[in-house]
Amino acid sequence: MVFKVLRNWKHFHTYIISEKKRSSIYKLKYIGVGALVATGVTVYNTCDFNVYAAKSDINAQEFLAEPITSLEHLTKHQNDMKSKMELMIMKIQAEFVKSLESFEDDNLKFKVDRWLRKEGGGGITCILQDGTVFEKAGVNTSVVTGTLPQSAVQQMRARGKHMDDGPLPFFAAGISAVIHPRNPMIPTIHFNYRYFEVVNNNSIQWWFGGGTDLTPYYLNEEDAKHFHRTLQETCNNYDPTYYAKFKKWCDDYFNIPHRGERRGIGGIFFDDLDTPDQQEAYNFVESCAKSVIPSYIPLVEKHKNDGYGYAERQWQLLRRGRYVEFNLIYDRGTKFGLYTPGARYESILMSLPLTARWEYMHQPDEDSKEGRLIEVLRNPKNWLEIKS
Amino acid sequence: MVFKVLRNWKHFHTYIISEKKRSSIYKLKYIGVGALVATGVTVYNTCDFNVYAAKSDINAQEFLAEPITSLEHLTKHQNDMKSKMELMIMKIQAEFVKSLESFEDDNLKFKVDRWLRKEGGGGITCILQDGTVFEKAGVNTSVVTGTLPQSAVQQMRARGKHMDDGPLPFFAAGISAVIHPRNPMIPTIHFNYRYFEVVNNNSIQWWFGGGTDLTPYYLNEEDAKHFHRTLQETCNNYDPTYYAKFKKWCDDYFNIPHRGERRGIGGIFFDDLDTPDQQEAYNFVESCAKSVIPSYIPLVEKHKNDGYGYAERQWQLLRRGRYVEFNLIYDRGTKFGLYTPGARYESILMSLPLTARWEYMHQPDEDSKEGRLIEVLRNPKNWLEIKS
Repeated sequence: MVFKVLRNWKHFHTYIISEKKRSSIYKLKYIGVGALVATGVTVYNTCDFNVYAAKSDINAQEFLAEPITSLEHLTKHQNDMKSKMELMIMKIQAEFVKSLESFEDDNLKFKVDRWLRKEGGGGITCILQDGTVFEKAGVNTSVVTGTLPQSAVQQMRARGKHMDDGPLPFFAAGISAVIHPRNPMIPTIHFNYRYFEVVNNNSIQWWFGGGTDLTPYYLNEEDAKHFHRTLQETCNNYDPTYYAKFKKWCDDYFNIPHRGERRGIGGIFFDDLDTPDQQEAYNFVESCAKSVIPSYIPLVEKHKNDGYGYAERQWQLLRRGRYVEFNLIYDRGTKFGLYTPGARYESILMSLPLTARWEYMHQPDEDSKEGRLIEVLRNPKNWLEIKS
Repeated sequence: MVFKVLRNWKHFHTYIISEKKRSSIYKLKYIGVGALVATGVTVYNTCDFNVYAAKSDINAQEFLAEPITSLEHLTKHQNDMKSKMELMIMKIQAEFVKSLESFEDDNLKFKVDRWLRKEGGGGITCILQDGTVFEKAGVNTSVVTGTLPQSAVQQMRARGKHMDDGPLPFFAAGISAVIHPRNPMIPTIHFNYRYFEVVNNNSIQWWFGGGTDLTPYYLNEEDAKHFHRTLQETCNNYDPTYYAKFKKWCDDYFNIPHRGERRGIGGIFFDDLDTPDQQEAYNFVESCAKSVIPSYIPLVEKHKNDGYGYAERQWQLLRRGRYVEFNLIYDRGTKFGLYTPGARYESILMSLPLTARWEYMHQPDEDSKEGRLIEVLRNPKNWLEIKS
């Protein structure tokens, strides 16, 4: 236990982002065990800040860093959806990071950076680079407050939301992860789950969004079915229409129009989810986030020792080039993030692979393994309707 | 002579882009010498098209492929700026390609792809990949006609142009090149020169745009001065205010706001140039295009055998990641191109390096060679005012 926290402590830094001078970094001292466990009304004096911990059943000990919102506040407002969401994403982050770390040598751990945003809120960015199994893996949470500029309000109106003129106070909490394994036989996974609140005409509008999608380098139909089946089962526990609807949404969203290709073989994707009620929508999102490990980790386990050669590695790098194209040209989250003043671009761009490649007019033979992947990227399949 | 044309012939294909099925490729037979030399009124029957060549002093023989506009038309309308521009960019393309090829083994030549656009016009894309000196080099021309959609008209109005409501007929001809050398001691160069005409209320609006800019991986002040001095001398032959104005424009344009860095050490950049008159503006643009070789090729010659190691290569790949960020997120030409239906994305994306890299939170020491580059990318310098 002490060892685990010590491990975290060694890797855990807090950065404060200033709009004026982003490169100025302040490391806050952090006291380890005590600050993470909220079991009594105690004040821990650290070098730069005080942690007020109140009576609670929050098991903050398992988190990788101190939550962005104070434990005191989270404890006091445990029934507020903002607190629930922050605590949930912290837990999912810790579980996923530990699951990924279990594939690597004991001495290779995620770097844990806790950062604060001058305008309100912050995040916890966990990155592992140059591992044996994972070439680059990022698992980030962020909890951000502020006021929505008029342009963002207009975008939301265009999506059908009834809103006053901006600026409007908002809260957003989410988890986002992209895992690029080294072995081209293991697919890349991305997931993102988020909760949004806007104060609008003295009432609160809220919604959830998110999704999980898979980007293989070589098509393995059994993997595709396992992945989609796991997501489908999660969806079916809540609404029998969800999987088909969110699967199509995913295929439509992760599209690279100039190439006429999808980024990968899809998964689920949804936004503006505010039905049937807040608690039930939360339960669904939590279940989706919990289904990431069973949908993906078995594929890592299955393929981590698969053989591959130079040609497969080159193909993987080319496909990663396509990943970069999607993320930098079309992904709304990346664009929105990078255009936001004071954005922590290092956290946003963690989704980019360690290495990518672009060759002019690279066109694999239709009958090759590479060509078979291209075929399903051009024409998304309903994996669960294919008879095996 | 015959050998040279044979060489071209072997590498030269024509593609026709269909919006519906981009991947369908038709190779047109091309007859080599005859089609390129317009010396008499002759009809050459080839497999798929006829070439009408009229009496002219156009030396089409030196071009790398048949111009997009027929030689007959170009010959008949030699005094039209559209023809002048197309002939000039064809000449510049051939000269630059040959200059770059002279650094490579005799058996490594640019691949020459001539492509036609269903909506009107086409281009000639020349690419060399995996050379000894050049890792990836693209030198493209395009000559495109069509009608400007209302959205493009609005953008042009926002830039101060007086225009009717769209759609308006337009013509655009340009040359664009990006050269990524293998040795990190040789900078990457980009240049682009273009001419635009819009038919508007029965009159023609026209303007020129373009620029040349340098992206070194390691700062060499002597190189920076040589490069900027060459551009300054070219500018000074036309207008003593051009260099300073276009140098600033370049620093402002090739900016990566989320990183607070310029893409490189600049050069010149301008748009909407329609003074003092059409011929003089053309002369300036032609001089700029002609100054690319003297501004850049001596740097290739000087550094092609410089020693470097793993660390320098890794740094080069990281900087190429920044190049990709600028081109895919901020570059107006790339975005405009990729969002255009029927765009030849392989030609647009030739600007991307063969390989690029992204590392989380990579920050070189301020006092290192890498740190010294970052310093000038953050704070652009007036190279010609530095005393040596």
